[in-house]
Amino acid sequence: MAKSKSKLKVMLLGGLCEIGENLTVLEYENDIIVIDCGLAFPDEDMLGIDLVIPDITYLEKNKEKIKGILLTHGHEDHIGAIPSVLRVIDPPIYGTPLTLGILENKLEEHDLLSRAKLVTVTPGSKVRLGVFEAEFIRVNHSIPDACCIAVRTPVGVVMHSGDFKLDVSPIDGEMMDLTRIGEYGREGVVLLMCESTNVERPGFTPSERKVGSSLDQIFRSNTDRRVIVATFSSNVHRVQQIIDVSVRYGRKVAITGRSMTNVVGAAVRLGYMNVPPDALIDISEIGKYPAKRLTIVTTGSQGEPMSALYRMAFSEHSAVELTSNDLVVLSSHAIPGNELLVGRIVNEMYKRGVNVYHDEAEVHVSGHACQEELKLMHALVKPKFFVPIHGEYRHLMQHKELAEFMGMPSNNIFVLNIGDVIEIGRDGKCKRAGTVPSGHVLVDGYGVGDVGNIVLRDRRHLSQDGLIVVVATVDEAMGEVVSGPDIISRGFVYVRESEELLDEVKHLSEKVLKRNVERGSTEWNMLKTNLKDELTRYIYSKTKRKPMILPVIMNV
Amino acid sequence: MAKSKSKLKVMLLGGLCEIGENLTVLEYENDIIVIDCGLAFPDEDMLGIDLVIPDITYLEKNKEKIKGILLTHGHEDHIGAIPSVLRVIDPPIYGTPLTLGILENKLEEHDLLSRAKLVTVTPGSKVRLGVFEAEFIRVNHSIPDACCIAVRTPVGVVMHSGDFKLDVSPIDGEMMDLTRIGEYGREGVVLLMCESTNVERPGFTPSERKVGSSLDQIFRSNTDRRVIVATFSSNVHRVQQIIDVSVRYGRKVAITGRSMTNVVGAAVRLGYMNVPPDALIDISEIGKYPAKRLTIVTTGSQGEPMSALYRMAFSEHSAVELTSNDLVVLSSHAIPGNELLVGRIVNEMYKRGVNVYHDEAEVHVSGHACQEELKLMHALVKPKFFVPIHGEYRHLMQHKELAEFMGMPSNNIFVLNIGDVIEIGRDGKCKRAGTVPSGHVLVDGYGVGDVGNIVLRDRRHLSQDGLIVVVATVDEAMGEVVSGPDIISRGFVYVRESEELLDEVKHLSEKVLKRNVERGSTEWNMLKTNLKDELTRYIYSKTKRKPMILPVIMNV
Repeated sequence: MAKSKSKLKVMLLGGLCEIGENLTVLEYENDIIVIDCGLAFPDEDMLGIDLVIPDITYLEKNKEKIKGILLTHGHEDHIGAIPSVLRVIDPPIYGTPLTLGILENKLEEHDLLSRAKLVTVTPGSKVRLGVFEAEFIRVNHSIPDACCIAVRTPVGVVMHSGDFKLDVSPIDGEMMDLTRIGEYGREGVVLLMCESTNVERPGFTPSERKVGSSLDQIFRSNTDRRVIVATFSSNVHRVQQIIDVSVRYGRKVAITGRSMTNVVGAAVRLGYMNVPPDALIDISEIGKYPAKRLTIVTTGSQGEPMSALYRMAFSEHSAVELTSNDLVVLSSHAIPGNELLVGRIVNEMYKRGVNVYHDEAEVHVSGHACQEELKLMHALVKPKFFVPIHGEYRHLMQHKELAEFMGMPSNNIFVLNIGDVIEIGRDGKCKRAGTVPSGHVLVDGYGVGDVGNIVLRDRRHLSQDGLIVVVATVDEAMGEVVSGPDIISRGFVYVRESEELLDEVKHLSEKVLKRNVERGSTEWNMLKTNLKDELTRYIYSKTKRKPMILPVIMNV
Repeated sequence: MAKSKSKLKVMLLGGLCEIGENLTVLEYENDIIVIDCGLAFPDEDMLGIDLVIPDITYLEKNKEKIKGILLTHGHEDHIGAIPSVLRVIDPPIYGTPLTLGILENKLEEHDLLSRAKLVTVTPGSKVRLGVFEAEFIRVNHSIPDACCIAVRTPVGVVMHSGDFKLDVSPIDGEMMDLTRIGEYGREGVVLLMCESTNVERPGFTPSERKVGSSLDQIFRSNTDRRVIVATFSSNVHRVQQIIDVSVRYGRKVAITGRSMTNVVGAAVRLGYMNVPPDALIDISEIGKYPAKRLTIVTTGSQGEPMSALYRMAFSEHSAVELTSNDLVVLSSHAIPGNELLVGRIVNEMYKRGVNVYHDEAEVHVSGHACQEELKLMHALVKPKFFVPIHGEYRHLMQHKELAEFMGMPSNNIFVLNIGDVIEIGRDGKCKRAGTVPSGHVLVDGYGVGDVGNIVLRDRRHLSQDGLIVVVATVDEAMGEVVSGPDIISRGFVYVRESEELLDEVKHLSEKVLKRNVERGSTEWNMLKTNLKDELTRYIYSKTKRKPMILPVIMNV
């Protein structure tokens, strides 16, 4: 029996770059478990793309081995790819109540709820999955019910941090279970996989409770104004604190924004929020109360176009018209890349005389561990091997340095690229073991993976200087152009102001056509290439632009 | 004589929004002076646009009145529109030596140097321009030779801050001339126009000298490595400090990046830099020296694609190959919107094992006044009226609040939009006086203003889902389709994987065509609209995408 030669394979199919869909795979012989299955939002150069999900070719090929998907928490970058993935594989999905509550909303939208096998666990639950046994362990994060996961495998315990912070005064009273993590550490952990988001920040991340006291200060000094607070919809404890402070100052609270309504609905239903009777009102009812008796909680803190806050700022919200008697509080941090979007909304609100409070240091705290908390994790888990996850490459490298600072030998740390595999044997050795297919799959509308580099390259080309279509009908037998060439341009120049240029393009096309057709050439590809080259050269010399040239030759 | 009724008109044709080309106009009867004439870089939704310049219709219409353009300093957002503007108006241009030195490089590139009337001034110079007398007064900024400008007008003194900070220990020993500014203040200033960039930051901006001591620390602890420092090319004092510290630690300095070479060249030639003999070497000579004896100063600190640092990071630089024996120092601040670009370069360098130092707090200081310096300006100038400039709308509003804090009556503060005009009379009154044409003119290649909203809308449409061209040749007389319809798509889907869909599109086009042509309809516009509508509907239902549909009907 070759059992002693069997190895645990660990591979990352996501979560290792700027666009961070999280997906970790553990495989041992005939058993596979998946930890998290998230989506990412597209880079700005992925034109027209709606979402990005991990390439799961490897899982598809090994689908009969997959015993389950374990979810650490309910953020999009950890659960968002499940609807797409369920069309290909269909294992049971394990998560805490709020995580599955949020996932259910999502599955319902995709009409997949009845198909999915959802299994609710609670922190402390152990799940047996083939050779693996996974325990969900409570951590703090910017969403309740977040867990790290300890997986007992034939080669030892693997600890996966999920996303976490340590909050010693959490809103729900449930601190990260350091004791249980420490017990695993004392027993011995062969591999720690730990998130790296805030590895560049020294110290400890402040408690969520800090935001509460800042909000109290703000509400106390704005008793004559309506207050609108924008935050992440999934930050249930933030919303809880906004409701608490509103009730304290005699205000009703209305919720707006689709995802905010969804998440608050799920949180209240599942008992994750504690809302006094009559505290919440429908957004359509705000007219019934004086402004100073109202708080509105809204989405849009990232400046997302068409979010509720965006619509308010640009006077397009059906229920909320902002005035100079409003105070808008941005209780959030602009994710890199969104600064300009947020800035645009803030400027627009200032133009309307709205009071804006956006001192992030006061009304926001991160959900991720800073350096000292990461060190704490390393100190408790004392792993033999370490794989930094969930960060851009520079974060992974800095996390490696942090682990070295904590005394870990450099050779025991594996900084992986997406698709890289490491193997851990029963002999306690760990080494790199090749790669599996991996990458980003682009989702555009209903299409998954039917847009790739060539299509994106064309979109980029079109977006820069537009296009010129040259169409002509040719009588092949007679060797003459019977109609056209017609020149149609889009996204190139104002046609009316550039008549002369477009006339020249037409003349040049005629010349090239005539030259080819009269020669009796029916090599349309050659003709098209000639047209493309000559027009490109001419237009660039006149305008310094390179529109896409699309020659179309019709035969009659 | 109606002279007593004459008013000073002040108008802002730029500098009041996210994209900040600076251009201020002062007009009194038959005299106009212009302060600064800058360009902006396009927003990400201005697809394919290279530059943005202010709309100068008003100046064009009044060109005989224009007595001069006064430049506060040599940054792009203050001088960059001059090449475009000189094609329309042609007044003399006044600036300090370095400002004009940088402008000359630019004019030469546009083959305009011989035409331009450049007049060199120094801090303390007074220039008579019609009824106006302008004095250039030294300020500190992130480029040497920066000035604010006091303009004596028939209705009193107008103080224009330019961009400034107070540096009590400047690298060139030349502190902002607080005394001269204070003398104007004691005499009486009717209007202060003051920049607002850092109005959200408390305290004072640190001295440039702080960067020098951080660099010393870094060089001292990296004596075994090559050091590459990326910074803004125009920050001559920063480059001076990099050279100083390099010389101190026995290193040669090589410069790379076109704008860096240009600016350093001008600064050395004009005596703004003090470079010991043999300290500088050509970038092609770096092979002659051991790595630890080299410093490279480079552009690209904003992550600009194809900048020297970008090319180094992606192994495309002809002279510099980065290794793990390099330390790259980012001596800069990512301008909002550039964070992702910078992050991409940093990640790429980490992947190559390069050491990266990017603690901005240590190796960068701002060039703009923080709150206490703005208060100092207000306290010295003690203006009657105040117009905040050079900032997004929220900055202008916060600057208004700062002025109120300094004791200015709210009614004396005018927060202007681009194109707004205020008038100040000899009676010491100031009021709003309508608007003049204004806006952003988009520059794409050689074309100035020939790309506008419709063209951009088309580019956006094309960039999202690509396009489908439907071409058919119709024999009008016979009432039949003689060729096609052919379907050509670009940027939509991978054609090979979507054959079925494109076949369906072809069939549907045939149906619509046939229906229209057999009816004997020659209303081609109606036919095209039908094609567009039916194909859009069909494709959206199948793919949830909306490519641009471009029907082309040829007659024979």
